[in-house]
Amino acid sequence: MDTLTIVKIGGNVIDKPAALQSFLKGFAALESPKILVHGGGTLATELLEKTGVPVRMYEGRRITDAGTLKICTMVYAGWINKTIVAQLQQAGCNAIGLSGADADTVPATKRPPAPVDFGFAGDVVAGRINVPVLSLLLGNGLCPVFCAITHDTQGGLLNTNADTMASAIAAALSETYRTKLLFCFEKGGVLADPDDGNSVIPEIDTAYFQQLKAQKIISKGMLPKLDNAFAALRAGVAEVHIKHADHLLSANAGTRIRVEM
Amino acid sequence: MDTLTIVKIGGNVIDKPAALQSFLKGFAALESPKILVHGGGTLATELLEKTGVPVRMYEGRRITDAGTLKICTMVYAGWINKTIVAQLQQAGCNAIGLSGADADTVPATKRPPAPVDFGFAGDVVAGRINVPVLSLLLGNGLCPVFCAITHDTQGGLLNTNADTMASAIAAALSETYRTKLLFCFEKGGVLADPDDGNSVIPEIDTAYFQQLKAQKIISKGMLPKLDNAFAALRAGVAEVHIKHADHLLSANAGTRIRVEM
Repeated sequence: MDTLTIVKIGGNVIDKPAALQSFLKGFAALESPKILVHGGGTLATELLEKTGVPVRMYEGRRITDAGTLKICTMVYAGWINKTIVAQLQQAGCNAIGLSGADADTVPATKRPPAPVDFGFAGDVVAGRINVPVLSLLLGNGLCPVFCAITHDTQGGLLNTNADTMASAIAAALSETYRTKLLFCFEKGGVLADPDDGNSVIPEIDTAYFQQLKAQKIISKGMLPKLDNAFAALRAGVAEVHIKHADHLLSANAGTRIRVEM
Repeated sequence: MDTLTIVKIGGNVIDKPAALQSFLKGFAALESPKILVHGGGTLATELLEKTGVPVRMYEGRRITDAGTLKICTMVYAGWINKTIVAQLQQAGCNAIGLSGADADTVPATKRPPAPVDFGFAGDVVAGRINVPVLSLLLGNGLCPVFCAITHDTQGGLLNTNADTMASAIAAALSETYRTKLLFCFEKGGVLADPDDGNSVIPEIDTAYFQQLKAQKIISKGMLPKLDNAFAALRAGVAEVHIKHADHLLSANAGTRIRVEM
C-alpha cells in the first residue's frame, strides 16, 4: 500500500505571503502522492466588509448567507486556490485546484436549519467522497489542492469546514492508501500552555484528550481540530499530526494524535 | 478519431442566470467528449467598482494591474467557474473546473509591455497546451470547464482572452481528436446587419471575410472572434461555428466559418 499524505494548511498562514510561499516550497518537496486542503484566511472577511455584506457569526462559526457564499467562493476557490496552485506549479509540484463540486469529488449535505441556521454550510460525509476520481488524479502524478467549498449535487455550492474536509478526504482514501494526515498552522502543535509556544505536547491519546479537556487546557479553537483528528483515526487514517507550517518536513515535530499510546 | 466539441460561452449569457442555466442544460446534453470555456461577464467590473480598483481599458481591452488580476481571478476562477460546474453536475455532466494553472493545462506568456502595457495579460501558445492531461481527463469521462485565467509557470497568474483560449485549446487537441469549436453568445451568428438579429450569414470563408471587413459590415467586437475562428481552422480544427447560446444543439444554426467554401 502506498503512503498518501494529506496536509491541511490553516488560514493564518495563508494571510502571510512569505510564510505561505515557504510552506508551499516544503509541501512541493514532500513525497507524492499527496493532497493539500487549504483554509480561508481573512481576505473573505475584508471583502465582505468592503462590499457591505454583513459578517454574521454564531459561537465563532460563520453564518453563510447567499452574499457570503458568493464572496467565500470567489476568495477560496478563486484567488487563494489559484495562487497556491500557481506557486506549487513553479515549485515543480503538478497541482490541480479543486472544489468539492469539481468532478463531484466532495459532495456535501446542507446543514439542517435547526437549532441554528448556518445558511449555505455543508457537512461532508466521508463515505460519499469520490475515491475513484481522486485515485485517478493521484495515480497520474497530479496533486489535488482543495478549497473548502463543496456542492449539494443539486446545483448549489456550500461552505465547508476545511479541517473536517481534510479529515473526511483522508478517511475516504484510507481504503486505497496508507494515509497520513497533517494539520499545519501557525503554532508548534497542541500547547500545554497557550501562552508558551514551546509547551508542545508530543503525543495525545483518547484518555489524555479527555483529561486535557477536563482540565480546560485545550482551548476552544483546538477542540474541533482534535475531534477531527480522532474521527480520522477511527475511520482508518494511519497517522495524524498537528504541527507548525514551517516544520512540515520534520517528522518528529508537533503533536502526534493516537487513539491509544 | 473521436469528435471533441469545444464550446466557448460568452460573458453576456453568464450575466443572465436563466439564460445561463438553459445553456448549461443544452451543454450537458451534448455528446461527450467536450470542453467548455467561459468568459467573464460584468461581475468583475461591478466588484472592481465596489472595492475601488480603477477600471482601465485600452481600445476596448482591459488593462490588468495587480488589483484587477485578483478580482478577475476571484470572479472567473471562483464564483463563475464553480457556479457553472455545480450546475453541470446537477445536469449529469461530470464537469471539472480548471484555470490554465491547474495541472499546468494552459501555460501562457505575459504580454510584452510595449507598445501598450496590458499588465498581467497572458497570451496562450497552442503548442504549449498540456494535451496529455486534457486527454487523461476527457478519456475518463470528465468535462473540463475552463475560465480564462492562465499562469506564467513562474508562480504568476495571467488574465487571458477566453475566445483565444478556446481556439488554442481546440487547435492543440486537433492532434488527438476531430475537433469542433462553437463560439456561443447572445446573437444568432455573424450578422450582415448588426441591427437585424435575423440577418445571420450562414457561411463565411476567407475571401468573404476580407470582403465583409472591407465593407465594414463586421463590427469591432466580431473581428477578433473571426480571427480566432480562422486561426483555429488553419491550426487543424475541423469545424468552427458562431451561434446563439440557445441554439447550441441545432447543427445548422448560426454562422459556419470555413477557410474555403
